Amino acid sequence: MSTKVTKIAVMTSGGDSPGMNAAVRAVVRACIYNNIECMGILRGYQGLIDNDLIPLDSRSVRNTISRGGTFLQSARSKEFRTVEGRAKAYKNFKENNLDALVVIGGDGSFTGGMIFNKEHKVPVIGIPGTIDNDIYGTQFTLGYDTALNTVVEVIDKIRDTASSHNRLFFVEVMGRDAGFIALNAGIGAGAEEILIPEENLGIERLIDSLNVSKKSGKTSSIVVVAEGDKTGKSVFELADYVEKNMPEYDVRVSVLGHMQRGGSPSCFDRVLAGRLGVRAVELLLEGKSNLMVGINNNKITSTNLEKAVKLHHDIDKELLKVADILSI
Amino acid sequence: MSTKVTKIAVMTSGGDSPGMNAAVRAVVRACIYNNIECMGILRGYQGLIDNDLIPLDSRSVRNTISRGGTFLQSARSKEFRTVEGRAKAYKNFKENNLDALVVIGGDGSFTGGMIFNKEHKVPVIGIPGTIDNDIYGTQFTLGYDTALNTVVEVIDKIRDTASSHNRLFFVEVMGRDAGFIALNAGIGAGAEEILIPEENLGIERLIDSLNVSKKSGKTSSIVVVAEGDKTGKSVFELADYVEKNMPEYDVRVSVLGHMQRGGSPSCFDRVLAGRLGVRAVELLLEGKSNLMVGINNNKITSTNLEKAVKLHHDIDKELLKVADILSI
Amino acid sequence: MSTKVTKIAVMTSGGDSPGMNAAVRAVVRACIYNNIECMGILRGYQGLIDNDLIPLDSRSVRNTISRGGTFLQSARSKEFRTVEGRAKAYKNFKENNLDALVVIGGDGSFTGGMIFNKEHKVPVIGIPGTIDNDIYGTQFTLGYDTALNTVVEVIDKIRDTASSHNRLFFVEVMGRDAGFIALNAGIGAGAEEILIPEENLGIERLIDSLNVSKKSGKTSSIVVVAEGDKTGKSVFELADYVEKNMPEYDVRVSVLGHMQRGGSPSCFDRVLAGRLGVRAVELLLEGKSNLMVGINNNKITSTNLEKAVKLHHDIDKELLKVADILSI
Amino acid sequence: MSTKVTKIAVMTSGGDSPGMNAAVRAVVRACIYNNIECMGILRGYQGLIDNDLIPLDSRSVRNTISRGGTFLQSARSKEFRTVEGRAKAYKNFKENNLDALVVIGGDGSFTGGMIFNKEHKVPVIGIPGTIDNDIYGTQFTLGYDTALNTVVEVIDKIRDTASSHNRLFFVEVMGRDAGFIALNAGIGAGAEEILIPEENLGIERLIDSLNVSKKSGKTSSIVVVAEGDKTGKSVFELADYVEKNMPEYDVRVSVLGHMQRGGSPSCFDRVLAGRLGVRAVELLLEGKSNLMVGINNNKITSTNLEKAVKLHHDIDKELLKVADILSI
Repeated sequence: MSTKVTKIAVMTSGGDSPGMNAAVRAVVRACIYNNIECMGILRGYQGLIDNDLIPLDSRSVRNTISRGGTFLQSARSKEFRTVEGRAKAYKNFKENNLDALVVIGGDGSFTGGMIFNKEHKVPVIGIPGTIDNDIYGTQFTLGYDTALNTVVEVIDKIRDTASSHNRLFFVEVMGRDAGFIALNAGIGAGAEEILIPEENLGIERLIDSLNVSKKSGKTSSIVVVAEGDKTGKSVFELADYVEKNMPEYDVRVSVLGHMQRGGSPSCFDRVLAGRLGVRAVELLLEGKSNLMVGINNNKITSTNLEKAVKLHHDIDKELLKVADILSI
Repeated sequence: MSTKVTKIAVMTSGGDSPGMNAAVRAVVRACIYNNIECMGILRGYQGLIDNDLIPLDSRSVRNTISRGGTFLQSARSKEFRTVEGRAKAYKNFKENNLDALVVIGGDGSFTGGMIFNKEHKVPVIGIPGTIDNDIYGTQFTLGYDTALNTVVEVIDKIRDTASSHNRLFFVEVMGRDAGFIALNAGIGAGAEEILIPEENLGIERLIDSLNVSKKSGKTSSIVVVAEGDKTGKSVFELADYVEKNMPEYDVRVSVLGHMQRGGSPSCFDRVLAGRLGVRAVELLLEGKSNLMVGINNNKITSTNLEKAVKLHHDIDKELLKVADILSI
Repeated sequence: MSTKVTKIAVMTSGGDSPGMNAAVRAVVRACIYNNIECMGILRGYQGLIDNDLIPLDSRSVRNTISRGGTFLQSARSKEFRTVEGRAKAYKNFKENNLDALVVIGGDGSFTGGMIFNKEHKVPVIGIPGTIDNDIYGTQFTLGYDTALNTVVEVIDKIRDTASSHNRLFFVEVMGRDAGFIALNAGIGAGAEEILIPEENLGIERLIDSLNVSKKSGKTSSIVVVAEGDKTGKSVFELADYVEKNMPEYDVRVSVLGHMQRGGSPSCFDRVLAGRLGVRAVELLLEGKSNLMVGINNNKITSTNLEKAVKLHHDIDKELLKVADILSI
Repeated sequence: MSTKVTKIAVMTSGGDSPGMNAAVRAVVRACIYNNIECMGILRGYQGLIDNDLIPLDSRSVRNTISRGGTFLQSARSKEFRTVEGRAKAYKNFKENNLDALVVIGGDGSFTGGMIFNKEHKVPVIGIPGTIDNDIYGTQFTLGYDTALNTVVEVIDKIRDTASSHNRLFFVEVMGRDAGFIALNAGIGAGAEEILIPEENLGIERLIDSLNVSKKSGKTSSIVVVAEGDKTGKSVFELADYVEKNMPEYDVRVSVLGHMQRGGSPSCFDRVLAGRLGVRAVELLLEGKSNLMVGINNNKITSTNLEKAVKLHHDIDKELLKVADILSI
């Protein structure tokens, strides 16, 4: 890391999220600002193994800030999990005269970066790009805010039809291990119940709560369920169970799926992408490595990559209580 | 029908669609303009049986034009399918001093209206409100244009993530008997393949076509499938089949579901609602009955309700060809 | 025109409109389907004079269907209005081995095409691309539907704040010579008054009408004004006049401006673009020229370019009446 | 303040902002949760003077979470600025058996609340509702996030047409005293220049910067200008000046205006509204007064109202630098 950084590469890795293009754009422009070169690696680590890189200048990232997905494409690479794969990747890294790497992605992508750094002394900075918001060291991950708006807009539409028909809707949203999307979008969409991986209230409590809603005069309801909900039942099983036990309800299920990953990023995610991308380049120029940039208390901070991968940040109890109160 | 019309009622019936509120608003304001009274029947025919009616004035429909769903609510009424049910409904119709009925809904709702008219001589005018666009006598049904935009916006988001990962997505859209949504939204979203109830191309042709796409360098694809697709396979079975036969593809399924019914109506649907609602009231004032208002060649026309229910309008062959050409 | 068409060029000219990219895409894919070559001319006629052309294949138009603006760019060319300019353009036309031209634009662009055709026998087909919907020979121009949705969405937002404060808003929308946007978006947005170039109701009638609204209990109002409104007053003068004569109102002005031209095209415009683009290429292959493709009665038709330029299609009286009734 | 709180009132005051309805809803539901009564005061302080109050229960706030504006309406009250006006307001406050007041608004509304508290010992809690984000004691005001998204979406549309025509657009956004909207939406929209009240770079620097952009190959540009920009020139004067000095540019102006205040709130603003509303009620129940609730470091905090009104929070220098780097 004592060598001067004059040329870096940036990649997007793992599941895509809105704002990744804006982050790549920020990395590229920060390189130009700092008079260093920048390359883009296509399809994440696999692209480095395949030597699939393109030079990136100001022009390459024109009009990308508003686009969902990632124009560098993303992939999960099995080969990079092997010593041989990483050796190939490093060979290409050196042949392209690269000095450092910016990895935009989640846990898995950062772990890959850490191993690569350990084996080949490649300076790596991570940018947390995932809609799940489940990464330690940043209060908000890139794409999370956009995903929340997407989910809320869709549930607003579902509520239109739910309240026209006195229906009960189970809406499954992303979040295998973390309930951030379910809890926040659930509050935002005015959901009557929210089921998340962090809490197992039990299916009986759901029935009780729906009965209370019913008695208070509500004729339609929305239950938001995170993929990784802890009841041990799929959203379809939950719906069946409720329909059997509350035959007065006309129950429907909607699984939002991959649309949650796409879409033009919100202003929040675009600004966040800009700040994280600029800071990532600055850290490399300062000779730093093995850090993830993040936003905390509205400031751009950095966290040890190892910590970012190992630790988790938790659902706020206050938010659970707010959700309870608002669903009265 | 020789009696002068001085008080009418309006209901929304069957599946809801965007623009129903705007149509109710237009009916109400056309009544005020023509100095007649207007009541709203809650929950379709069932509300008439239950005598659940509310007076509607200009104030009641304020700020409704932009809202999805139907504030009069909708329902399917088993009771109205019986002679006794309809007799109850008629009793309430008379006791409320109603002279005529405007029914906003689809096929089933119009059939109910025709029987009610036959049995009790109640003047009935239908307004075609359904996202499926499958009603004879109108080139566009109320809510269809909005649903198309909803579907295209969602598929745009899915494409973001599809093209970031070289994925093949099967997207199921509404349309049990008609492929209007699938075909038009498929073209609008730039789908590589579109499967509709009106055409059975066979699953082998799908595989062939995807192979052609693949060879031409496409690395991600969207296949739009109407609910009532004629391959005889569910969208999940289709996806499984393709994944087995084209293992190079990472296949995903997204079922859009009820969100397609909701949302703030498009300008087209709002204007259409206005024109249809105004014309429905005019027809009643002209002493007409058993007609459905519709839009044809950009003019508001009327069609015999019986014809509207019995006949269907077909998918345009030109559009199928355009879809083929554009997916090259 | 007896020569076989094997290579054509497409340009976008004049003011841009949503759906232009989708139309270029359709032209390109229709060329591929019909085994002919396609080039894109940059910046309209000026690009032909400057020999600024690019080859277009399926890849060049990937992911363009959802984008507003025109990636071929547009411009107004003074040089093309001269004999010398057109001679230069024709020289480049021949040197690029082009057989025919597709021009996406409005009146002015078509006039240019007609003169070019007269002088140099170049087969020309026009596609009506303008948000103003003021072209004879098509019930809908490309971009008009999208612009209506844009305007309605913005006025919905303005109404939020208007009704929170009992305010009267004057909203100026595009339409120098035609009131299509003002009338339809005005109805769609539930405007209390709509001022268009085709009708001069006089400013006193506006005051009267606002007084009626006020008496009926309305505490906020939206007046939609087309740029080319016939009162002879600017929207700011109108607002001043009303504020002086109705001091009880808190009057505000909003000029929507160029945002109306942008944005991702609606499904309607995308499908229309596909149909028009495909048909334009077919007409050229059939040896036709000097025609504009259009949509009438939901079918793709063609009109003599001269007629398209000289004639106008008029505002529907029925729509004016509907607007009146709905603003009660 | 030693009396037990059993009945409170909530009002929205000053300029409206998206999320105000969601905040009222949260206050109402928090009251129900805590078994106290809640009333809504119409049109801010003026409504209290006019004794225009309505009881609010769970039903009154149904389906309000997604709506822009404020259903309680807002106003600026001259009368409340007088001792007599406040005396009348207090008389009504007592006659309605109210124990405390929640005021949703900005600086001016809080000042009113403080004086009311001083004179009549009325417990007051403020919720910062304004799109300007210029209130000390909270990192985000209610409605700010939504306004940012609105501005960015509109500028995305303007960019479509700007880049189709090589145009330079001056876009004026709200912010008389604070550049938060201009700076963040400018970064989010990828603006080439951002002019804010906090910094006077001088018009010559703008010309220099546009020249640099031009030389780097940019053919279109967006300059975002806050209302309160310090150049001392209006956005139209700025545009004129640049057009005269850079005749190669086709310059246009767009003033976004009041649309920035409207629209369905973003998920962020809805969740924020929920948390602030719940906390405001809790503080009253804890016997607190003269506090403003806010969000800091992702926690709900409270600040002395006096501080909130007197102090300001500043633009982050880091953000100015990021804006500079990204506009390269």
